[in-house]
Amino acid sequence: MNATKRPRVVIIGAGFGGLTAAKALKNAPVDVTLIDRRNHHLFQPLLYQVATAGLAPNQIATPIRAIVRQQKNVRVELGTVEAIDPAQRHVVLGDRHVPYDYLIVATGARHAYFGHDDWERFAPGLKTLEDATEQRKRILLAFERAELEPDPAERAALTTFVVIGGGPTGVETAGAIAELANKALARDYRRIDPKSARIILVEAAPRILGNFPPDLSEHARRALEKLGVEVRIGNAVTKVDETGVTLGGEHIGSRCVIWAAGVQSSPAARWLSLPADRAGRAIIGGDLRAPHHPNIFIIGDCAAVNGADGKQLPGVAPVAKQQGDYAARVIKAEFEGNPLAEPFGYIDYGNLATVGRKAAVADFRGFHLKGFIGWFVWSAAHIYYLIGFKNRIAVALDWVWSYLTFERGARLITGDITDEAPAATAKRDAA
Amino acid sequence: MNATKRPRVVIIGAGFGGLTAAKALKNAPVDVTLIDRRNHHLFQPLLYQVATAGLAPNQIATPIRAIVRQQKNVRVELGTVEAIDPAQRHVVLGDRHVPYDYLIVATGARHAYFGHDDWERFAPGLKTLEDATEQRKRILLAFERAELEPDPAERAALTTFVVIGGGPTGVETAGAIAELANKALARDYRRIDPKSARIILVEAAPRILGNFPPDLSEHARRALEKLGVEVRIGNAVTKVDETGVTLGGEHIGSRCVIWAAGVQSSPAARWLSLPADRAGRAIIGGDLRAPHHPNIFIIGDCAAVNGADGKQLPGVAPVAKQQGDYAARVIKAEFEGNPLAEPFGYIDYGNLATVGRKAAVADFRGFHLKGFIGWFVWSAAHIYYLIGFKNRIAVALDWVWSYLTFERGARLITGDITDEAPAATAKRDAA
Repeated sequence: MNATKRPRVVIIGAGFGGLTAAKALKNAPVDVTLIDRRNHHLFQPLLYQVATAGLAPNQIATPIRAIVRQQKNVRVELGTVEAIDPAQRHVVLGDRHVPYDYLIVATGARHAYFGHDDWERFAPGLKTLEDATEQRKRILLAFERAELEPDPAERAALTTFVVIGGGPTGVETAGAIAELANKALARDYRRIDPKSARIILVEAAPRILGNFPPDLSEHARRALEKLGVEVRIGNAVTKVDETGVTLGGEHIGSRCVIWAAGVQSSPAARWLSLPADRAGRAIIGGDLRAPHHPNIFIIGDCAAVNGADGKQLPGVAPVAKQQGDYAARVIKAEFEGNPLAEPFGYIDYGNLATVGRKAAVADFRGFHLKGFIGWFVWSAAHIYYLIGFKNRIAVALDWVWSYLTFERGARLITGDITDEAPAATAKRDAA
Repeated sequence: MNATKRPRVVIIGAGFGGLTAAKALKNAPVDVTLIDRRNHHLFQPLLYQVATAGLAPNQIATPIRAIVRQQKNVRVELGTVEAIDPAQRHVVLGDRHVPYDYLIVATGARHAYFGHDDWERFAPGLKTLEDATEQRKRILLAFERAELEPDPAERAALTTFVVIGGGPTGVETAGAIAELANKALARDYRRIDPKSARIILVEAAPRILGNFPPDLSEHARRALEKLGVEVRIGNAVTKVDETGVTLGGEHIGSRCVIWAAGVQSSPAARWLSLPADRAGRAIIGGDLRAPHHPNIFIIGDCAAVNGADGKQLPGVAPVAKQQGDYAARVIKAEFEGNPLAEPFGYIDYGNLATVGRKAAVADFRGFHLKGFIGWFVWSAAHIYYLIGFKNRIAVALDWVWSYLTFERGARLITGDITDEAPAATAKRDAA
């Protein structure tokens, strides 16, 4: 680094971690380049709302450029990183090489099938806006096809929804599908009754929401069952195909299976030849630096970092944000000739999950909230953290509206549906 | 038709015409089946706003089922009509046959290239939500690529936008791109200045907005030029390819060309072997009935009907709506044993087009409005006609927000962008 040139900090990924790091470098004497494959920051905790037609894509996504517009030391570049060259100190995007003095890798994770990649076709996961609009299409088309389907067995399979994975995403998705069927769609069909749809939540562990205290898991299970969701715990899925899901010995006929069971890290560890855990996360220490590359920080869902209790920190937004902030503070401190000595320490403010309206569970350091008050806190927290003032208002309005009317604002089937048109076989001339 | 069974009215297409017909049959003793390829009604006059990132798809689209939910004699079916069998009196959707006693064909139109279908790849048109999100992606990606492009000539081509066709859609699109570049994006890039983008509106006729009186055309032209749009009139496009547009002898380098120049009817005339005009519209009389098939009505953009002045009625929403209402009244009158004698008569309440904020032109039977008051009337009219109470509020809020902040709410690039990633050739290590 020479004195005449400002150090270059390159951040890969504009998720919670990368964006927080960029913002924390606001007044630092550095030039920041923020690289992302997308032009928008996505508020992933609400992605399931898009998948279940509760919110529209633009309500949970904000253009990255708009977020950092005022911060003149940040440059945004759209592009897909293919490799990192720590010797040359640059990031490789095809023929384009972006040089860095400091690098923050915050490339997140995608859903994973752990050796069952063939399941993806029948049970897609939920990580991007495109994933969400695709799931929305699948869910809504299932009802459309059921309305036209003369065969009762096929009709039952079309209105059976299986959500695999009992973590927060699975619980929230199952609850939202139940509300969609029971309320928003309830009066919209003439031949089928959406209220008779089966929604099944499958979890291999002995309880759902394994990261929450047992009493809140139990509360969530009962709240789901009240919504009409069948909760199947302690049962591992052994097969997913076009006919449905096999669970233990039982086959559940379903035309719409949703995967919320596992994630796989982006290839940060592979790019840097670092040891990784089972999910591909780079195993790093409390300084968040890549071993042997002290000018590279790895944060968020692509990093495996242990907390004070020796357990691995969860892949949630608050961890990514606090790590982004920490990495930025370390970089700033180095210029000020006053290197930060203490390692990263995660402050856990609590854990939230919602089960439809009026029911959520919240665990604030042992202080448990449930039911409507839990839901209220959940809503307030999510609206507060949604980036962008306007989105906050729009989401709040949408929720108030949904609450009052049970209406869904974003019930659009977009994309090609002709390939997947119902193969109705009965002619109804005689009817 | 026997006495024990209610007559079946089948409506193909839930656009302005079909939906109005369905609603007008609310209290009629008939069973209505409303068939559409999409699950949503689209407010097409505002589609250009989605294409230019001003509104989100869900703000201009409403689920058809939600619109007719309260109307118990309407059944909605999702499906693609392939043929009509007037002898058997049914509509063919693959193996599915839907029988009718009365049929209303309201299948609309798509954009057309009149013998230049190879242009579509480089100059897509705007008729569906998917068209609009695709155009939004192309427009926004052009700026993203320009930001990364080292070659000045290529950068200029990336920030040159050519809109072909000077009707309302072309005028509105060109104005909206100019505002996007001059306002919403103005401060978002570090290397390029979006305000220096070239927006060119091309019209082969001697003036834009040919359906409006000449003074309003002239006002619109000046308003566009004030926004920085180059208006090229009396010039026919002779070529469109990956390098740009050829106009007379001149080649304009552009990576984003938008087609707003012509429409082609859906195949209603072909389905029924009826004579059609150049755009494929079925040529029918004032009774709106298909010749030789008195129980089939053809309305909206797939019908060529002359007005009282002998000129063909324009392909606009008010014509379709009034025709839908007329067809429904004719059908109702037939049951009441009191057949309607008078032919369809179009009541023209006026013509509106907008040129960005603060400027619109309106022609109400010779009473002309321009500028801000025109814009205000335009906004009020469009919000009023947007179907769905909530959409009205959401769109109004969005417009007020845009007006106050010049911000764009829906600036998302979705869909695959990896195939189209900028082929940047310069390495910037040396920089």
